[in-house]
Amino acid sequence: MNFEDIVNSRRAVNFFDKDKDVSEELLREMVELAAKSPSGFNLQPWNMIVLRDSESKGRLQKLAWDQPKVSEAPIALIILADIDGWKEENKTVEKVFLENVKAGIMSEEQREWFKNARDSIYGDSRDKQLAFACKNTGFFAMTLMLAAKSLGLDTHPMDGFDHEGVIKEFNIPDNYWIPLLLAVGYFDKDKQLYPPKWRKSYDEIVVEF
Amino acid sequence: MNFEDIVNSRRAVNFFDKDKDVSEELLREMVELAAKSPSGFNLQPWNMIVLRDSESKGRLQKLAWDQPKVSEAPIALIILADIDGWKEENKTVEKVFLENVKAGIMSEEQREWFKNARDSIYGDSRDKQLAFACKNTGFFAMTLMLAAKSLGLDTHPMDGFDHEGVIKEFNIPDNYWIPLLLAVGYFDKDKQLYPPKWRKSYDEIVVEF
Repeated sequence: MNFEDIVNSRRAVNFFDKDKDVSEELLREMVELAAKSPSGFNLQPWNMIVLRDSESKGRLQKLAWDQPKVSEAPIALIILADIDGWKEENKTVEKVFLENVKAGIMSEEQREWFKNARDSIYGDSRDKQLAFACKNTGFFAMTLMLAAKSLGLDTHPMDGFDHEGVIKEFNIPDNYWIPLLLAVGYFDKDKQLYPPKWRKSYDEIVVEF
Repeated sequence: MNFEDIVNSRRAVNFFDKDKDVSEELLREMVELAAKSPSGFNLQPWNMIVLRDSESKGRLQKLAWDQPKVSEAPIALIILADIDGWKEENKTVEKVFLENVKAGIMSEEQREWFKNARDSIYGDSRDKQLAFACKNTGFFAMTLMLAAKSLGLDTHPMDGFDHEGVIKEFNIPDNYWIPLLLAVGYFDKDKQLYPPKWRKSYDEIVVEF
């Protein structure tokens, strides 16, 4: 499939084939493609919890407006955005710096510069930290959905869930925001999809002030 | 190019060919592909300002750590996330509802349900509204970058800018957050790119608590 076909055939699928599992290998392939998404300073402030067993998916479904697709899909992902993913003490931040030094992209002497740059962009408000986490994790999740389609899989991103409830139920540390849940599997071909929904045109997207 | 090639060849390009313009037609094509990105309730809370003339790009560059690529790229986009893009009085929200009714996805009687659903998810905190805006606009911007690559274009997403300064300089209404700036053009082939940066592995992305 070319890119246009992937974009056009990616749909938020409400009905998943309960009998068709997604292999660990395929999930890895999908995630490793999404891992190549860009992020501010390459900080990659994204993680995810993978739920496969029906007990865990059932607990999530209860907190997600009881949407059956959460359990019907073989995999339900809780996508996590790390609000602290720019801080000096963050493990990934340190790794990014060391890998940059190793690749000759930064020098050891730039450690202070790198810290100051992050502090100046993200350090001064909760808004900036949350926007950083959710924007970049949005990049990751979008590539995840397109990668899924390119591998023959279907997905459904969900906003309809109790944010605080899921944080509590799954013991999620409070440095994380949950920008979305994502059901992953195969469309149930016995069901029907609505035609693609209306989208804003170029002229509705571009603004001037 | 297949999807894997697009993902692997999309790079944040620091050097743009100053002599190679991007046609209006190509930009439209790119944006119309990105417009198909999913969003919570299909609310599409994304907009963008397109800068092409050197005077405007120069004003933006000054507020973006003086990064030359802002001016060197034929197009600089100010990507906007509408924090109010879930509210009843929002024009796009009304249009989404009417288009859903027209397509038989919703009935006129569901107007109240639709309002309550949005209010219950986004209504009770600034955090939720900002996360909604930035996550969905992240989807849009990610597809924009991949669409660009699929059309032979290169991009560079930027976090390094003075958020309040750009809001002020370009008279951006305060319902918008700027999740990123995006330079769009063609890579300057006289320059060299570093090898792709380190990325987290599957096992570093998946977490359990």
